[in-house]
Amino acid sequence: MVQTKPMPKSDSQTVIARCRQLAAVSEMPHGTFRTFLSPAMKRCYEIVSEWMKNAGMAVRVDDAGNLRGLRAGVQPGKRTLVMGSHLDTVRDAGAFDGILGVMMAIAVAESCKGSQVPFDIEVIGFSEEEGVRFGVPFIGSRALAGLLDEQTLQRSDSAGITIAQAIRNFGLEPRHIPAVAVGTALGYIEFHIEQGPVLEAAGEAVGIVESIAGQNHATVKFIGSANHAGTTPMRLRRDALTAAAEWIIVVERCARSTPGLVATTGKIDALPGVSNVIAAEVTLSLDVRHAADDARVGAYDAMRGAATEIAARRGLLLQWEDSLSLRTVRMDPMLTEELEGASPPGVRRMVSGAGHDAMIIAPHIPSTMLFLRTPGGISHHPAENVLPEDVELALQIGRRFVESLSARSSRS
Amino acid sequence: MVQTKPMPKSDSQTVIARCRQLAAVSEMPHGTFRTFLSPAMKRCYEIVSEWMKNAGMAVRVDDAGNLRGLRAGVQPGKRTLVMGSHLDTVRDAGAFDGILGVMMAIAVAESCKGSQVPFDIEVIGFSEEEGVRFGVPFIGSRALAGLLDEQTLQRSDSAGITIAQAIRNFGLEPRHIPAVAVGTALGYIEFHIEQGPVLEAAGEAVGIVESIAGQNHATVKFIGSANHAGTTPMRLRRDALTAAAEWIIVVERCARSTPGLVATTGKIDALPGVSNVIAAEVTLSLDVRHAADDARVGAYDAMRGAATEIAARRGLLLQWEDSLSLRTVRMDPMLTEELEGASPPGVRRMVSGAGHDAMIIAPHIPSTMLFLRTPGGISHHPAENVLPEDVELALQIGRRFVESLSARSSRS
Repeated sequence: MVQTKPMPKSDSQTVIARCRQLAAVSEMPHGTFRTFLSPAMKRCYEIVSEWMKNAGMAVRVDDAGNLRGLRAGVQPGKRTLVMGSHLDTVRDAGAFDGILGVMMAIAVAESCKGSQVPFDIEVIGFSEEEGVRFGVPFIGSRALAGLLDEQTLQRSDSAGITIAQAIRNFGLEPRHIPAVAVGTALGYIEFHIEQGPVLEAAGEAVGIVESIAGQNHATVKFIGSANHAGTTPMRLRRDALTAAAEWIIVVERCARSTPGLVATTGKIDALPGVSNVIAAEVTLSLDVRHAADDARVGAYDAMRGAATEIAARRGLLLQWEDSLSLRTVRMDPMLTEELEGASPPGVRRMVSGAGHDAMIIAPHIPSTMLFLRTPGGISHHPAENVLPEDVELALQIGRRFVESLSARSSRS
Repeated sequence: MVQTKPMPKSDSQTVIARCRQLAAVSEMPHGTFRTFLSPAMKRCYEIVSEWMKNAGMAVRVDDAGNLRGLRAGVQPGKRTLVMGSHLDTVRDAGAFDGILGVMMAIAVAESCKGSQVPFDIEVIGFSEEEGVRFGVPFIGSRALAGLLDEQTLQRSDSAGITIAQAIRNFGLEPRHIPAVAVGTALGYIEFHIEQGPVLEAAGEAVGIVESIAGQNHATVKFIGSANHAGTTPMRLRRDALTAAAEWIIVVERCARSTPGLVATTGKIDALPGVSNVIAAEVTLSLDVRHAADDARVGAYDAMRGAATEIAARRGLLLQWEDSLSLRTVRMDPMLTEELEGASPPGVRRMVSGAGHDAMIIAPHIPSTMLFLRTPGGISHHPAENVLPEDVELALQIGRRFVESLSARSSRS
């Protein structure tokens, strides 16, 4: 019997295979779902740690739960280049949102083997970006930027466990979170799927992110009163769900009539939530985004005003909690130029409608981002995909980016 | 030390105290909640069984889970008088909806001690009326009327357990359900709180139910597609929650513009149900009621038509499941006259907007119902209440009703 060696996989094949492998590491029996420091996330860390070690990195988990792999450069004392993205997912997610950026960072760092990169490269798998478990996103990158405050650490998940407790339960120490913050660094680069239709429509593989659209999130609660569905006349009702429905439509209409604005009410809970009882309490999420801060804040304020008016007219109480407010963030112009230089001529510059860890990090570390085309624009969905040739090109860009930074760093 | 005997409680005090005691037998740590054959319901059965036995009844649980206490009459062979109501509750319920009718039936039966009631009196605590656990109501009374079919028995709760399985898990046998059906009976009487504002507004303690308004229930599902809240332009969305919201408002508007109609969307679930993902699937309950069958069916059909139109216009799928359709049911004229004769002069006759077990039983056994005033019209809520003097009067009416039926039965 003739033994044949398996064909060596290309880096892009490895990257995609690893993303697919991690998609099966999940809190759901069918489908992908990993939240902050969950048991599934622990298994994910174990697997990714092995890949980091095989790429020659020293691996640790910091006290905000970020998985960090450090590849030492040849010139000690140089500032570190940080590369990464997040390891958590939404419920029933695709295989690439977040993970792809971590897998590509490992592949780029590994491909530097043998080359004389002067600076350290640190690959970070952020512990939390999606905001699923605690209703606030960016837990990992906020810690890196020194922005994870005590109030946020006291937020609870649906089981009543706080972020601080979840960190302790994982064997980490929330009091050490201030030490997670990075002082100075050479820069931060993040590879991420576009999660939108722009690159595909233009027939382009990659795009450079110039800025990330600002966003406001709120938790909105309408409080009426429960009563019997059969005996309470319509005019005597204080129905929290019909109030919420009226407001959802106002939000949608406002977004439709404001060019470039997107607004989403994705989560809704009605109490007591039974068919023959008028809803007493409805809690909703609101997510508003726009590339221009003025347009975003104006729309957000109008939506809040509408909720107040609807609640008052219907005799309900309104509770409005601002859970996140982020201005539009520009990427670092010099680093973006460096990334453009590493890319094919004519590469598109674009605005990201999605928030990313780079949004949190950019004000603290010079940051840049490369988008990869997303087939069908489909994301946050099991059908989420990438094209192997796009991943291959992005890896080449990543390597050239590190080379060009190496050359610049060696000159300085 | 002087020993003093406790003052003997009046029957109405006992009835109210028992209702309050059972309110603490619950599936919730704070608040009242008992569903079909749950562990809390089992404890409830144990307690109520003791009270039935103390009242001289032979107690059993039938194969639809109804708790039944039989007090033998002095003339064997006479048709049985059935008295009862339901033992299950909505979530975070009050202490009187359903339970009051069972406790009053026990008290009326017990007060017949020593009197020569010719017929058997059977007190039934129905296992299920509210429809919480399986999304269909009247499981207990449907079995008594011979209407609990195999298809209904295969409905599942949120944990995937069917009605048939829940019955088996309780140690009962669903194949014996046809034998639960009552052939002939002298009559059925149900005491129940009004759960509405009419008697209180009129300053009246009790009212006689002439008919129970028909109702349609549906489970309505809008199916769109999940996508990223930050990158999907408004015009490209297929948002199941905004579609549902538009429809909720149509339902409300339709009910408001049709005199006497009530329509409620009390339950809503959105998937995946996270703040930064457009809702792919929203499932809603619909409950429509009116004293006139034509008005009810016309409104229900219009609501279905609106849902179809909204789904089509927005590029969504609609799934519509009729889960219950009940015509308006008239109580038995002769028995109602008997009840009127047992009541104070000028007692009001009224329509019930709420469904009751009597609605299911009336086509099979001559039925009548007495309503008790509900303070503030508040029901399906922890603040639900009754006035002791109203309970006392209703007990007197109950006793006179049994006496007058006894006299009639002895004559026949």
